[in-house]
Amino acid sequence: MSVKLFHELVGLDEAVKSVQKKIKLVPRGVEVVRVEEALYRVLAEDVYAPIDYPPFDRSEVDGYAVFSASVERATELNPVELDVKGALFPGNPLIGVQCDEKSAVQVSTGAPIPLSCDAVVMEEFTDRVDGKVLVYRAVSPGDGISTTGSDVSAGDLVLPRGVLIRHNHVALLAGLGIRDVPTYIKPRVAVYSTGVELREPGSPLPIGCVYDVNGFLVSSFLRELGAEAEYRGVLPDNYDVIRDAIARDLHSYDAVITSGGTSAGVSDVVYRVFEDIGEVLVHGLKSRPGKPTVIAVAGEKLLIGLPGFPLSAYMVLVRVVKPLISLLTGLRYYEKPLQVRLPFKVRKQIGIAWLVPSVLVESEKGLVAYPVPYTSGSISAIAYSEGFVELGEEQEVIEEGQLVSYYPFREAQVVVKLIVIGSNDPLLEHILRETGLIYASKVLNAGSLGGWEAIRRGEADIAPTHLYDPETGSYNTPFLKRLGLEDKAIVIRGYDRLIGFVVAKDNPKSIRGFECFFREDVRIVNRTRGSGIRSLIDYNLSRIARDRGIDAANIPRLVRGYTYEVKTHTAVGYAVKVGKADVGVAVGYVAKMYDLDFIPIGWEEFDFVVLKERVEKPLVQDFIHALRQRRYTEGFRYPEYYRIPENSGFTKTH
Amino acid sequence: MSVKLFHELVGLDEAVKSVQKKIKLVPRGVEVVRVEEALYRVLAEDVYAPIDYPPFDRSEVDGYAVFSASVERATELNPVELDVKGALFPGNPLIGVQCDEKSAVQVSTGAPIPLSCDAVVMEEFTDRVDGKVLVYRAVSPGDGISTTGSDVSAGDLVLPRGVLIRHNHVALLAGLGIRDVPTYIKPRVAVYSTGVELREPGSPLPIGCVYDVNGFLVSSFLRELGAEAEYRGVLPDNYDVIRDAIARDLHSYDAVITSGGTSAGVSDVVYRVFEDIGEVLVHGLKSRPGKPTVIAVAGEKLLIGLPGFPLSAYMVLVRVVKPLISLLTGLRYYEKPLQVRLPFKVRKQIGIAWLVPSVLVESEKGLVAYPVPYTSGSISAIAYSEGFVELGEEQEVIEEGQLVSYYPFREAQVVVKLIVIGSNDPLLEHILRETGLIYASKVLNAGSLGGWEAIRRGEADIAPTHLYDPETGSYNTPFLKRLGLEDKAIVIRGYDRLIGFVVAKDNPKSIRGFECFFREDVRIVNRTRGSGIRSLIDYNLSRIARDRGIDAANIPRLVRGYTYEVKTHTAVGYAVKVGKADVGVAVGYVAKMYDLDFIPIGWEEFDFVVLKERVEKPLVQDFIHALRQRRYTEGFRYPEYYRIPENSGFTKTH
Repeated sequence: MSVKLFHELVGLDEAVKSVQKKIKLVPRGVEVVRVEEALYRVLAEDVYAPIDYPPFDRSEVDGYAVFSASVERATELNPVELDVKGALFPGNPLIGVQCDEKSAVQVSTGAPIPLSCDAVVMEEFTDRVDGKVLVYRAVSPGDGISTTGSDVSAGDLVLPRGVLIRHNHVALLAGLGIRDVPTYIKPRVAVYSTGVELREPGSPLPIGCVYDVNGFLVSSFLRELGAEAEYRGVLPDNYDVIRDAIARDLHSYDAVITSGGTSAGVSDVVYRVFEDIGEVLVHGLKSRPGKPTVIAVAGEKLLIGLPGFPLSAYMVLVRVVKPLISLLTGLRYYEKPLQVRLPFKVRKQIGIAWLVPSVLVESEKGLVAYPVPYTSGSISAIAYSEGFVELGEEQEVIEEGQLVSYYPFREAQVVVKLIVIGSNDPLLEHILRETGLIYASKVLNAGSLGGWEAIRRGEADIAPTHLYDPETGSYNTPFLKRLGLEDKAIVIRGYDRLIGFVVAKDNPKSIRGFECFFREDVRIVNRTRGSGIRSLIDYNLSRIARDRGIDAANIPRLVRGYTYEVKTHTAVGYAVKVGKADVGVAVGYVAKMYDLDFIPIGWEEFDFVVLKERVEKPLVQDFIHALRQRRYTEGFRYPEYYRIPENSGFTKTH
Repeated sequence: MSVKLFHELVGLDEAVKSVQKKIKLVPRGVEVVRVEEALYRVLAEDVYAPIDYPPFDRSEVDGYAVFSASVERATELNPVELDVKGALFPGNPLIGVQCDEKSAVQVSTGAPIPLSCDAVVMEEFTDRVDGKVLVYRAVSPGDGISTTGSDVSAGDLVLPRGVLIRHNHVALLAGLGIRDVPTYIKPRVAVYSTGVELREPGSPLPIGCVYDVNGFLVSSFLRELGAEAEYRGVLPDNYDVIRDAIARDLHSYDAVITSGGTSAGVSDVVYRVFEDIGEVLVHGLKSRPGKPTVIAVAGEKLLIGLPGFPLSAYMVLVRVVKPLISLLTGLRYYEKPLQVRLPFKVRKQIGIAWLVPSVLVESEKGLVAYPVPYTSGSISAIAYSEGFVELGEEQEVIEEGQLVSYYPFREAQVVVKLIVIGSNDPLLEHILRETGLIYASKVLNAGSLGGWEAIRRGEADIAPTHLYDPETGSYNTPFLKRLGLEDKAIVIRGYDRLIGFVVAKDNPKSIRGFECFFREDVRIVNRTRGSGIRSLIDYNLSRIARDRGIDAANIPRLVRGYTYEVKTHTAVGYAVKVGKADVGVAVGYVAKMYDLDFIPIGWEEFDFVVLKERVEKPLVQDFIHALRQRRYTEGFRYPEYYRIPENSGFTKTH
């Protein structure tokens, strides 16, 4: 077989894509493990909460469960006396415990709350006298109680597939009662080194020889990625020996990775073996170092030949092997590199990427990548440098201070995240996942107003919001002016979602509108203050009260369940489903989720407030780009409750 | 036994110290594992490089090894023709390969360099014609060659004990030929939960009950810390059952950790069991949450009872259990928390620390900890929040924007590091290690001048320097003015170190001073440009040349070995030891290390340039504080070559 030189070098990203185009790299399958064994495994399915958490209304303190109205006049000087009707501890069933406006039930932290009580008075504000308790302080409805599902609502997406399971995930899964966890089967990778000069650590070292580094580097790097990598030793630079070893391994491994023996020239033996066994997709990368890399496929199996110099091999591992092997392990992560600054001007050749080991330093100008002095054969640079800068193929001159891509060798020193604080919405979660942004996002459900406040403080990049302004009849944009944020933020158009009344199947209470909330036979489930739905409910109840000549201050008393506040749409659905409420206001999908009836109120505009100074942040740009694609209901479970406008992803002016 | 209330609450740091005062928590022993099995183990001994890397002068490129002087006039139009005296490949011994000024040896990347050659011409600048090669480009001495030990010198500290071994460390150890790695034996920890309300995941959940979270949280948290933690199930709130289980476990585990059953009151069963079995050191922490924590010792074994609420248990795990268990695993890390800002004013009670789960957000003011809305029983906060803020016991009012301590639950989102760029010194390494700063430092050996440059760019916090200024006769301080850094940086006084000539045992060449460097029978080993030693050598050689009427430009020709540059003091010692040079200039300890003779030149001042704006950075303050203690040669291997001045750690003015 004739020896070929590299004639068509392939770019780094292109190399990964060429494999993906050729074969479908996916995990070998799913293996269900017990939750305590799931640590460091990759989650293979989305996990939706099977139960509410807490699973019942639960006391947060030691004290007395009461009906809040019965102690509303209690003070230090004029305590209210109540009969004590028993005691509840964690694990006690509620059966037989009754409570009325004249009585209280002793509860300890974690105990269930009797059905008729709506608050807990802390022990320190009470005195126990025989069978009675003196209460020295008033409480508001909900005080001292964690309501059912207030932490996690049944049906919430709690973990997306593709995450590496850590101790906090194990705890969450266990707390939701999930014993069996679907995880991906680990891929098996055979690792070899080639080169007559290589010796095993622990053996004598003749002049001209070096200890093998790559076999150890590659196999332990892959193990950290979650693969079952096996270092199978040093192969001589001999065509037949290498060919036989790899051909044999194809039966029992998902991938074979070699290093060395890839230089164009007399010893390009790995290329020749790959060409014989499979189909070579990449013979030479457009990068320095890293050029002598060979990638091939044999059936569904992956073959990779890395450069012989350890540092070159290491950078190709991060840049090319990691994304490919992660398709086999199922690990999902946000793939874009960090953008950092170069400390000096660099001039390079066009047509080839330069990879430069560097350390990150924080300076006044932001993160600066300081190149590590190294030679290509360095092993100290492997141990001590933290990542590398990539100067792109097409770049020729990079100015001092210009932004360049930075790839960490191990964990990132700085984890850049997209900070999303505000209203929660399942389609938003879907967008974050489809873009991969969910693996680089911190999402805090703080309600629409909480999001605006976070924008004002500069803490959120993006605040999802759906606040209605009755004066202008517009959603969201009027609040830029009202909250004094015109100079600081913009509203990016999102989408419309259909909200309405969620009621039991066949609408047994014949709910027709907000007017019904005042009926004595109707109990509602409310949302927490600051949420867009809450402001919609309050606006309508105030309007009706005004029409009827009722003081708005009395609404909490007149509307049953007004003080029963939950945090999410799904919790509204759950409350109706289990009969804790007759009606609530939510996005339509929760009715479908819980098999309830839905009476549409109308389409509301769900948009995104963005800090002006963060619009150019790459993660924010990715999000805006996804909105502009307008394809984001594809693959979503409940598309019928959403409507994508033409200007989705663009600045909204009114 | 009577039930006690918490009467003496103990602070969080104090709790850890009280255990350390009582018993010596150390790893159970050392276990030697093969390097490929060392991944994720904790290194039990300091590792010094047993060999140089590269272990021989090695070609970095494919080309021709030459004597640089023979091709100094080579150009594209007027190539120099040399005889080709053989070829060397990686793994080839040097025997039989000779080269002179009229010849070259073909070398491929990684091949050893023949002894008489001092540079390699890259293949692309040559033409092979029969047995001869045409060279089209001149090369400087050292071009294309990685000299022996230029990457790692034999005797260099490459890894300090206490590090968690990652893939990059495995590669480094293998490359240095280290097959057997000493690691700490993993401690064994038994984990229990207590509480009648707890159910195992996968079983039915009656009203009033919850699934156990803590058993899973604690055991997987400890596994991530490197302990062999075993979750042994839920214990009933029964004194005898708990007592029997723990007493039995003391035979086979190093620690027992329970959670729940620790509240002061009727169910304070864990406290009573601990008091019976061992000695209770802590009964109640001065923190909210976290107060119901019990810590005891039984012989050399550790007993910890955590609060029942998972989030409370989690914060105590991070704050108290992690430092204690890390003493058992041997894992060393820099223990100080991150300093971040609060987004609003907080008023709290004095005498108790508040722990507040938070997420970190980067804002214009730096890192801001944004509290996560949560209730104490939350499990979602465990999964989604990244750490917590600690508002100290003694604080009452914390103003908006004030700095507070932040502890990450898992990896830090932002890894704060002390950036040290400049001259290398083993005593400096010793200081960094003794303070724990080595686990939070990035140390780049860039030479003294490289360090000053990094300070100018704002990239280094600290630049170790020993630059002599002949004009003023002072070290280091004159360069503040000369480099225009008077407004930007200060010089912190370090220490003196004794430098001198390192020569073979009994000084066979009778080296007496820098004058001898001009002798024909003397070959020197030089240091790289930018190092303080190099500038000392150059200053003296120029002075002698001037006295003798020699043009300084001729020094590189007249002084044999002038172009043989190495990066570290140890490499100087090695070069003399193996006979590659007759003399070099280095700190005295290398003579001792290699059993060579040492002729003192004098004490030089080794100081630290610090950016003014970084002086207050906590890590820099720790370093300065350690200098001011003036005890830092304690435990150091070569104290006789160092001298600590009175003003060590204080600003140096001249």
